[in-house]
Amino acid sequence: MTDNVRIALDAMGGDHGPAVVVPGADISRARHPRAEFVFFGDQASIAPLLDTCPKLKAVSRIVHTDVAVRMDDKPSQALRHGRWKSSMWLAIDAVKKGEADVAISAGNTGALMAMAKFNLRTMPGIERPAIAALWPTLRGESVVLDLGASIGADAEHLVDLAVMGSAMARVLFDLERPTVGLLNIGVEEIKGLEEVREAGQILREAQLPELDYIGFVEGTDMGLGTADVVVTEGFAGNIALKAAEGTARQMGEYLKSALSRTWRARLGYFFAREAFKVLRDKMDPRKVNGGVFLGLNGIVIKSHGGTDADGFASAIDVGHDMVRYALLEKIRKTLAHYQQRGKAPPLGEAAL
Amino acid sequence: MTDNVRIALDAMGGDHGPAVVVPGADISRARHPRAEFVFFGDQASIAPLLDTCPKLKAVSRIVHTDVAVRMDDKPSQALRHGRWKSSMWLAIDAVKKGEADVAISAGNTGALMAMAKFNLRTMPGIERPAIAALWPTLRGESVVLDLGASIGADAEHLVDLAVMGSAMARVLFDLERPTVGLLNIGVEEIKGLEEVREAGQILREAQLPELDYIGFVEGTDMGLGTADVVVTEGFAGNIALKAAEGTARQMGEYLKSALSRTWRARLGYFFAREAFKVLRDKMDPRKVNGGVFLGLNGIVIKSHGGTDADGFASAIDVGHDMVRYALLEKIRKTLAHYQQRGKAPPLGEAAL
Repeated sequence: MTDNVRIALDAMGGDHGPAVVVPGADISRARHPRAEFVFFGDQASIAPLLDTCPKLKAVSRIVHTDVAVRMDDKPSQALRHGRWKSSMWLAIDAVKKGEADVAISAGNTGALMAMAKFNLRTMPGIERPAIAALWPTLRGESVVLDLGASIGADAEHLVDLAVMGSAMARVLFDLERPTVGLLNIGVEEIKGLEEVREAGQILREAQLPELDYIGFVEGTDMGLGTADVVVTEGFAGNIALKAAEGTARQMGEYLKSALSRTWRARLGYFFAREAFKVLRDKMDPRKVNGGVFLGLNGIVIKSHGGTDADGFASAIDVGHDMVRYALLEKIRKTLAHYQQRGKAPPLGEAAL
Repeated sequence: MTDNVRIALDAMGGDHGPAVVVPGADISRARHPRAEFVFFGDQASIAPLLDTCPKLKAVSRIVHTDVAVRMDDKPSQALRHGRWKSSMWLAIDAVKKGEADVAISAGNTGALMAMAKFNLRTMPGIERPAIAALWPTLRGESVVLDLGASIGADAEHLVDLAVMGSAMARVLFDLERPTVGLLNIGVEEIKGLEEVREAGQILREAQLPELDYIGFVEGTDMGLGTADVVVTEGFAGNIALKAAEGTARQMGEYLKSALSRTWRARLGYFFAREAFKVLRDKMDPRKVNGGVFLGLNGIVIKSHGGTDADGFASAIDVGHDMVRYALLEKIRKTLAHYQQRGKAPPLGEAAL
């Protein structure tokens, strides 16, 4: 094993396959000189693209397979037809076998999660995996999870999400003790779901050294960046993410149409176009591309299926950092603290 | 009983009380010449404000009470201290007694819902009330519900929400048969919650003449306006609403900061300022102010607590239209159709 980060790529995943995966890898490679890449997929499609990126080629190899999971395969179909042999499976399997440190795919989420679960299994102490993503906020970025890996959550699962999400925030934001909020529909203690209240109580009493539980947060807090980590069950999390994406797109449309309406507006746009570029960059969904699968014995990153090379490079960046800054180790350590707490003789306040 | 719309106002509700409620009523009055108003609250605060609006005064009366529900009262406190005598209760009670057609309050949501439920009771055939709101979309507006009146929903409640929401859409959008989508985390039939799938099956088989069920929609569809009515349970609905509000605010901040960064950007803003005014108007949350309580034997509208006179006027407008275009009648009729269907001998496809 080397100090390098070894990245397994499902070259056939996503709407564009190798045409995005290879140039995406080249962009990320330039930012991470010690990364190595393995491309799983159709040799005949990958090799010519790799030839155009000599620096990437020097740190890459190709593992050929004919089989690719389709974007519309159901998870069960993908497992039936793609296990042992699809590019998606092989990328995950490289992580399982210790030949790679992280697997990245723009393939379909359900299939990727099913294969990752089947092959890597959940970590000891974690019942169900989760999908986490970076959420752009007025203060920077937050980690939000779960975004739909599973539906519904009891208090224990919400606590697991807090543990895993805070480990991810420590990796990505270089924080000692990120703040964690539980998503709820009101900040008063009396409101919201029973399991959310119970999870809040557990987190408050646990006083974990790796995370700072700050209580309930509401939907509006996500954009404000009130907490470094926002925890919710997968149904509400997925809806929130997509509602926010939809709103951002909607406002972009409003802006575009307002600025092309009159000659004065078009002139204004001309003068302010640098400012709009900054704005566009800030809102660029490609910059925060990369759903992180948490709770498995290995790191798997899901890129948006429709992304371009820049977006795919962001997903690789996220995966790279997760390895480099020891995500799994951090999760294990926090889990151990949490579990020791559970087994320790009850403290005064824990008896409540 | 006259043909006029009689509007009961909780003059003490919201962050600003009569200072917003009275001028708000005056703005709405100008748009609805046949509206009549009753102000419930502190006579000494209301009367001088009303004196400054002679046209409003001519169609208004004041019912004095010393008691007001506070914004931070818990629902149980509000019921204990404010029942029979608070301005909020009296406004609702006027609807109950048939002295008014609609009650509007900017007071606290939990208290208003508790009092409305306690006093007006749910309609026959409806288990639990809901809160619906207008959601601005790229195509215009949609009705979204439930936004937090209750948490969790079985399939029957989701169907009730579809029935009530479509009645509201018919009133507000003047549609014969609004499209209805069930909010879910994937458009494939295999995904999402069991109860959402079951509700989808019921709606598909019911083939109600008053609504056009179009299947599952996702969070992104809300901003796009894919369905006239978007149905979800209250927890996810509330989170989605607030996530979208947060994102809109966040993008407004980004835009403001981008446009004040350089002299070129500021010059651009100068030329395009009319366009930005259009944009601001479009995003103005006051324009869609007014959560509608559905499923009760009477119409109650919740205005945002922090709104200004324009925003409060919008809430009154919504209430006015609900009365004018017979919301309750429309809900009852659709419910009856739905219930008849339930009792009819099963059709071929219903046996599935």
